[in-house]
Amino acid sequence: MDTKIREIEDRILIGEVLSGYCRMLDTMDLNQVGNLFTLDCVVEFGPDERLNARSAQALASNLSRLWRWRRTSHHLSNVEVAFRSDSEACASSYVIAWHERPDGTTATLYGTYRDTLVRTVDGWRISTRRQEMNGSDAGFTVGIFPASRAAPPAGWAPPNYVMS
Amino acid sequence: MDTKIREIEDRILIGEVLSGYCRMLDTMDLNQVGNLFTLDCVVEFGPDERLNARSAQALASNLSRLWRWRRTSHHLSNVEVAFRSDSEACASSYVIAWHERPDGTTATLYGTYRDTLVRTVDGWRISTRRQEMNGSDAGFTVGIFPASRAAPPAGWAPPNYVMS
Amino acid sequence: MDTKIREIEDRILIGEVLSGYCRMLDTMDLNQVGNLFTLDCVVEFGPDERLNARSAQALASNLSRLWRWRRTSHHLSNVEVAFRSDSEACASSYVIAWHERPDGTTATLYGTYRDTLVRTVDGWRISTRRQEMNGSDAGFTVGIFPASRAAPPAGWAPPNYVMS
Repeated sequence: MDTKIREIEDRILIGEVLSGYCRMLDTMDLNQVGNLFTLDCVVEFGPDERLNARSAQALASNLSRLWRWRRTSHHLSNVEVAFRSDSEACASSYVIAWHERPDGTTATLYGTYRDTLVRTVDGWRISTRRQEMNGSDAGFTVGIFPASRAAPPAGWAPPNYVMS
Repeated sequence: MDTKIREIEDRILIGEVLSGYCRMLDTMDLNQVGNLFTLDCVVEFGPDERLNARSAQALASNLSRLWRWRRTSHHLSNVEVAFRSDSEACASSYVIAWHERPDGTTATLYGTYRDTLVRTVDGWRISTRRQEMNGSDAGFTVGIFPASRAAPPAGWAPPNYVMS
Repeated sequence: MDTKIREIEDRILIGEVLSGYCRMLDTMDLNQVGNLFTLDCVVEFGPDERLNARSAQALASNLSRLWRWRRTSHHLSNVEVAFRSDSEACASSYVIAWHERPDGTTATLYGTYRDTLVRTVDGWRISTRRQEMNGSDAGFTVGIFPASRAAPPAGWAPPNYVMS
């Protein structure tokens, strides 16, 4: 029983790490955000290496780019966690990331975080993160990795009942 | 205590089924989506019967209509679960379903899933699902069941302080 | 062990209160919404006191202003709960609150709820709630408290790689 309870508690703690990241971005509490990651974390946003970070310190530094927005709101959902061992987990989560520029125009990303987390003496930390983009509105122009989506089978045609 | 822990675990497992559906739609992994439903499931989207399915196989087949979108992102939240018995549960959840056409135009649904799930030897499966629409943007034109909303009492008037 | 299980169950129950509020707003089930709050609750939306309520009864009455919308959809996420004692908790949660006017125009709030909840003989109830606004689209004009966001350090400049 104790093992089961511990795993449930670990899910709660991991959820707090994922939500905490969103909160810290929206408050721009960058002094705290590094504490959610391992010192040697690898965080990848896209093919342009300047977006990415290979340490918690570099990540916190890079995320200062979010000050170019006037306001942001990162809404996390669809959290799925699978344990590889007692001290390692994979997590997938969705985010609606709304951003507003100083001129009032906005950019919204519909994204996925793909994470590995490890249990440390200081709690669960993200050791690898890859952000993917399910989609975005026209205002969002950062080159995030596209999420994969299966192609239709050969010969697929839309159904003959009308839907736009 | 074991009963309580089992129910907590069941909530987690049911949450994974609900999130799994969203993930499989967005990746168009239609070979998997039928495994989240009972073989004889009833899944209803709206009054047009061509939208609906009365088996897991029919559902997976019908959902191929989503290939008419270029990209989608289904953000699940507000998950509420109530157990009717050890092996049956009701769930309500919210979804923001973003869809993009090949021409770049988009359609967003603000919806509710109303589900019955049953415990099977292969895990929790959705046996009945009804999708309802709290609202949508102008781009979304599929005839989803409207969610119910109480009407104002007779004589209701907006408050006298100004809000648009 | 029992204490740990109880806290996990309390998190589930608190989550149901938070989701229940959203559901009741969207169905306009205002006869029920007061039951989620203590009788003497303090609920603050913004600096205009006419928006706020200092009892469950006043809150339910005030929320009738939502009938000025034709439809609404309140999507709750990023739930974080911390227990101050066995019978008191703080919760933070995010909401995407979509509203549609009778003329079809819409207003969307990206908000945060900051709550205190207390355990009563009738279950967990919200005793204090403050709604904050991370952001909104141009259609949303209600004066909700702005969420706090740290300012950039002196001399901060956008990175020299181009991102809009």
